[in-house]
Amino acid sequence: MAYEIGKDDLVNLYDLPTLQKFSTDFLLALGATDEEAAIITDGLMTASQWWHPGQGQGLEKFFRFYRQINNGGIIPNAPMQWVQEGPSYALLDAAKGFGYVSAHRAMARAVEKAKVTGIAMVGVRHSNHFGIAGYHALHAAKHGLIGWSFTNAKAEMAPWGSAQVVLGTNPWGIAIPRKDTHAIVLDMALTMSGKGMMMWYEREGKAMPDNWALTPTGERTTDPTAAMQGPLLPIGEYKGYGLSLITDVLSGVMTGSLFGMDVFQDESNHDVGHVMLAIDPGAFMPREAVDARLEKLIEQVKGAPPINPAQPVILPGEVEFKRMEQREREGIPLSRKTVDELRTLASQLKVDFPL
Amino acid sequence: MAYEIGKDDLVNLYDLPTLQKFSTDFLLALGATDEEAAIITDGLMTASQWWHPGQGQGLEKFFRFYRQINNGGIIPNAPMQWVQEGPSYALLDAAKGFGYVSAHRAMARAVEKAKVTGIAMVGVRHSNHFGIAGYHALHAAKHGLIGWSFTNAKAEMAPWGSAQVVLGTNPWGIAIPRKDTHAIVLDMALTMSGKGMMMWYEREGKAMPDNWALTPTGERTTDPTAAMQGPLLPIGEYKGYGLSLITDVLSGVMTGSLFGMDVFQDESNHDVGHVMLAIDPGAFMPREAVDARLEKLIEQVKGAPPINPAQPVILPGEVEFKRMEQREREGIPLSRKTVDELRTLASQLKVDFPL
Repeated sequence: MAYEIGKDDLVNLYDLPTLQKFSTDFLLALGATDEEAAIITDGLMTASQWWHPGQGQGLEKFFRFYRQINNGGIIPNAPMQWVQEGPSYALLDAAKGFGYVSAHRAMARAVEKAKVTGIAMVGVRHSNHFGIAGYHALHAAKHGLIGWSFTNAKAEMAPWGSAQVVLGTNPWGIAIPRKDTHAIVLDMALTMSGKGMMMWYEREGKAMPDNWALTPTGERTTDPTAAMQGPLLPIGEYKGYGLSLITDVLSGVMTGSLFGMDVFQDESNHDVGHVMLAIDPGAFMPREAVDARLEKLIEQVKGAPPINPAQPVILPGEVEFKRMEQREREGIPLSRKTVDELRTLASQLKVDFPL
Repeated sequence: MAYEIGKDDLVNLYDLPTLQKFSTDFLLALGATDEEAAIITDGLMTASQWWHPGQGQGLEKFFRFYRQINNGGIIPNAPMQWVQEGPSYALLDAAKGFGYVSAHRAMARAVEKAKVTGIAMVGVRHSNHFGIAGYHALHAAKHGLIGWSFTNAKAEMAPWGSAQVVLGTNPWGIAIPRKDTHAIVLDMALTMSGKGMMMWYEREGKAMPDNWALTPTGERTTDPTAAMQGPLLPIGEYKGYGLSLITDVLSGVMTGSLFGMDVFQDESNHDVGHVMLAIDPGAFMPREAVDARLEKLIEQVKGAPPINPAQPVILPGEVEFKRMEQREREGIPLSRKTVDELRTLASQLKVDFPL
């Protein structure tokens, strides 16, 4: 995630409460309920504190929300319904509502069920982009459970050996709660990198690693422009292809959402599917013992001498939580371009614009 | 898995029933029960049909079994016990028994439970090497469920940014059942490759890819000899490190087995942990609909035009099942060196030697 913004893309810093208030007002103006606005704002603020503005997971999402609410792709206050339920599973029909909201409700239900049965799986169908996968996994960890979120997504990866995109980057979030400190949070796509990162290399005129993407005719390349129309490469080569396929089975095929090349089929119908797993870490032995054992493993991991003495070993999520603390003190970055565009949108919607 | 045997390592072919009988006799002579001998023989035969003899997952395992039974590391007919149980979970204490047997029993229990509750998780503690991860996942698929097997293993991977091994390759097996044909089976370590593959490159005097392993001082290398003492590199760089850490939490920390650098701490106490997940693919909608949707996704995947027209896109596990059919017809390869060593062992144990 060492991802610096280009020089043309200047950034200002804004304090969290200001952004929270603006986000809430904006979402209410779009027709979101109070509960929806609160859930989405929390997700977008987390993304803004963890990630880089160029990755487009913070308030940059408003442009998509606005567009898709207008074309019917996202329905605020959608009539979501629980359509299946069993001891350790449930299925939510998101009815084209906000992905953040349906995924949040699904993980909340998975947590409730896993506390009773040890593990639970909650699916979501007919949903939209759910934001950052790690956020939903963290939701479970905040309730003391292990969370694992799966989603399918627009096809950007080819089956191994082909250059035709069929599967998504299908991100995973996995969070493991720790006693008295931040959870371990692994937030990752199943591709080596994403189009956002490639665009940054393109803007900066730099060569990218040759294992990120292929050209449209299936050649390895370090040229981001040549790769922009080709498929992203999976982690671990054929292994990541397999993981992406399996993720699509769990989140698309099984739930009743679109899958494969059909997800995001048009702007007014993305029809994404998600699956949330929650696991009780104390299912097998007293929780205090598990917590203590986990800290012992972390000691071994973090005690491994770094190759570069200036870069000690870190846990998944550690960079993000440090960044979060820094941004709570110093402010959250937004590019000037984004702020200008948000100003225009806010004035159209007659929402107070405090930035 | 394009993994050819070196020229010094000649191979003979043997028919399946002959190997099955020898395997059963040998295991009984080591003190295994009939049930144990049947489970382990089935696993070893599958490995022999799927994998290359140089990978050491077939009858090559007998040398380890013999050694570890003699030093107390493996206890045939071990007094395994169910020590925890809830609606969707259970924990098996393997009491230092055969890993194949404990993992098999755990997946059988996970399948039973998931059929009732939708998803189940069964842990195993105080176990041994469970063989190939995909075999245990396939066990669930043969009962119509999705199987996902996790195990920890001897430390061979460093946390990202270090060259000191702390975590295992921690293999995963994931199997998805299909109607009327072989399951999708993804059988993979969380490293780019393994020591066995590197040894083959070393024997052949070839340069290996530079993303497989580091030298002991943390440099990238294409020299298998230089890398042999260093850490294996994870899939997806820091992502695979995160996945390996999480796998160790699930299978080591949570179950009560050893974890991190302590797994395989000495020859007489490996104390490996596993976790088996079973998931009902029909939890969310009628099973026939899921089966039909899965075939549609597979059509899209396999319909993607190959970069090399001679190599059409294949599903995870497809190569292995083809190889299995071929070996059922033509015989199963064993290296002459292995056969010679098995002959010596068989004569010590007074077991008929038909090879």
